[in-house]
Amino acid sequence: MSDLSGRIPTREDIEAAHGRIRPHIHRTPVMTSRSIDGLLGAKLFFKCENLQRCGAFKIRGACNAVFSLSDEEIKNGVATHSSGNHAQALALAAKLRGAKAYVVMPHTSAKVKVDAVRGYGAEITFCGPIGDSRRESLEKVLDRTGAAFVHPYDDPRVIAGQATAAKELLEDVKDLDMVIAPVGGGGLLSGTSLSAKYFSNGVKSWGAEPEGADDAFRSLKEGMLIPQTNPKTIADGLLTSLSPLTFEIIRSNVAGIAIVSEGGIIEAMRHLFQRMKLVVEPSGAVPLGALIERESSFRGKRIGVVLSGGNVDPALVARLR
Amino acid sequence: MSDLSGRIPTREDIEAAHGRIRPHIHRTPVMTSRSIDGLLGAKLFFKCENLQRCGAFKIRGACNAVFSLSDEEIKNGVATHSSGNHAQALALAAKLRGAKAYVVMPHTSAKVKVDAVRGYGAEITFCGPIGDSRRESLEKVLDRTGAAFVHPYDDPRVIAGQATAAKELLEDVKDLDMVIAPVGGGGLLSGTSLSAKYFSNGVKSWGAEPEGADDAFRSLKEGMLIPQTNPKTIADGLLTSLSPLTFEIIRSNVAGIAIVSEGGIIEAMRHLFQRMKLVVEPSGAVPLGALIERESSFRGKRIGVVLSGGNVDPALVARLR
Repeated sequence: MSDLSGRIPTREDIEAAHGRIRPHIHRTPVMTSRSIDGLLGAKLFFKCENLQRCGAFKIRGACNAVFSLSDEEIKNGVATHSSGNHAQALALAAKLRGAKAYVVMPHTSAKVKVDAVRGYGAEITFCGPIGDSRRESLEKVLDRTGAAFVHPYDDPRVIAGQATAAKELLEDVKDLDMVIAPVGGGGLLSGTSLSAKYFSNGVKSWGAEPEGADDAFRSLKEGMLIPQTNPKTIADGLLTSLSPLTFEIIRSNVAGIAIVSEGGIIEAMRHLFQRMKLVVEPSGAVPLGALIERESSFRGKRIGVVLSGGNVDPALVARLR
Repeated sequence: MSDLSGRIPTREDIEAAHGRIRPHIHRTPVMTSRSIDGLLGAKLFFKCENLQRCGAFKIRGACNAVFSLSDEEIKNGVATHSSGNHAQALALAAKLRGAKAYVVMPHTSAKVKVDAVRGYGAEITFCGPIGDSRRESLEKVLDRTGAAFVHPYDDPRVIAGQATAAKELLEDVKDLDMVIAPVGGGGLLSGTSLSAKYFSNGVKSWGAEPEGADDAFRSLKEGMLIPQTNPKTIADGLLTSLSPLTFEIIRSNVAGIAIVSEGGIIEAMRHLFQRMKLVVEPSGAVPLGALIERESSFRGKRIGVVLSGGNVDPALVARLR
């Protein structure tokens, strides 16, 4: 394994990221719910990144990457591949910097997401839905434009940006026992675990993952990176696999990964909708779902929960009855 | 017309109400949205009573009424008729006081609402859906139990409680030009207009009402109370008519009533859902809908908007595409 230590964000990297992105992001509120606390026998503090700009934490990492670049480095714009929240976030971050953004999206992407990316002025290249097609299309875009690539999660600047959500939570709520965040590619969980390490006295970090896309759980258990080959989950933000960098950070800093069923994800969305009046996407409801399904392990604890995003199809909400 | 002046809450009544209910309610957050501001060319400050306990502002008035009663007055409990948020709110307020609650609900009420009322320990009496049947059933309950009646809005203690939402908004946001709240029976708008009068320097109060239940608009225009006879709107919290008391307060203190179409209500719910990730019931979306449909009248202004509640059927959300 190559040495990744030089790529792991330091405490100073995360502090610098926070200063850099603060003018561009919301400091999202922390909310609580007596009825959900009663259900779990625990005290939960929800960090509402569903109320973040673009509707997800992704703007933190995208902004940090975009505003870290020198004028020379960004003169040809930035580019990425994403069907989801990172695409919108990078498009907005580039717009805020006054730079051009190029986004490779599968032609199967939801129209509402395509419209949002285009609405921020990004140029979209459509590709097939398979990973190889995405990478080929991206390579062509990079060759043609000379844009700087910003990976959705395998990038220290992105991880440092995502880390600022947990940093704010730890500043706002004292005496947490643990903080839990969803894990897909691992950018958010990596950042969360680094912030817990740097900015708290022993707050434990947990990941939460759908049963149908449990590569992080299996990778941690086996002690080696096991890619996700055939993900099956409603949590469409968590389909990807860890990278060597995020695996290394998570392996070193995370206490455990809690798994949740598909029914548990819907159940968590229902609680957030009915009791807290919050719109949370399936991926964002994964940590609460995992806590509910494994409540005996978490009883009596003070738990920070990262509600990672709120970009959900309204039709899905109709199932929350 | 009988003299109502003795029943109009004073500044001191509202301050006392706030002190009385503060331990039992949330101080709800005020949220903003750049994209909605951009759409309207105005600056909006949303008072999120959808995030209030029981999912609506109604707990404020119910708590103030219940905690205003002496031990002697409440010894036989409290009673009301309501199919909606006031029923839940009174049931919870009574539970917090350790008193019994009796609620008359139409047998057509949504099961989720019946379950919520029952969950707070209230005794439910079902009645027919027509006003006369409700009142008869309530009279019987009052005769049988000796409970103290708490009307959903025609009650100075309830109005003083509802006034605390706007009082908090005015404390949190300075230099508002106006504040706008939905109007059904008029308890919330009465309280809002009194708080604007007592606790601001000239902030104007506006009501917002569905086209299909525009009795407040017509009453103000004609200068006399015109009851709502055949309301037709998705905003199920705004079907009732003003009372003489709320009409008097609104007539004296409100700058105008803005009307919104059914499509405009859905459009406002869509913006709140998609852009702010907030679950807001149709009645709560009425003010934003009215602002959007009449944006030329409100351009450039700083506007406080009371999002009155969030108790909505998930199936309705599926229409927000």
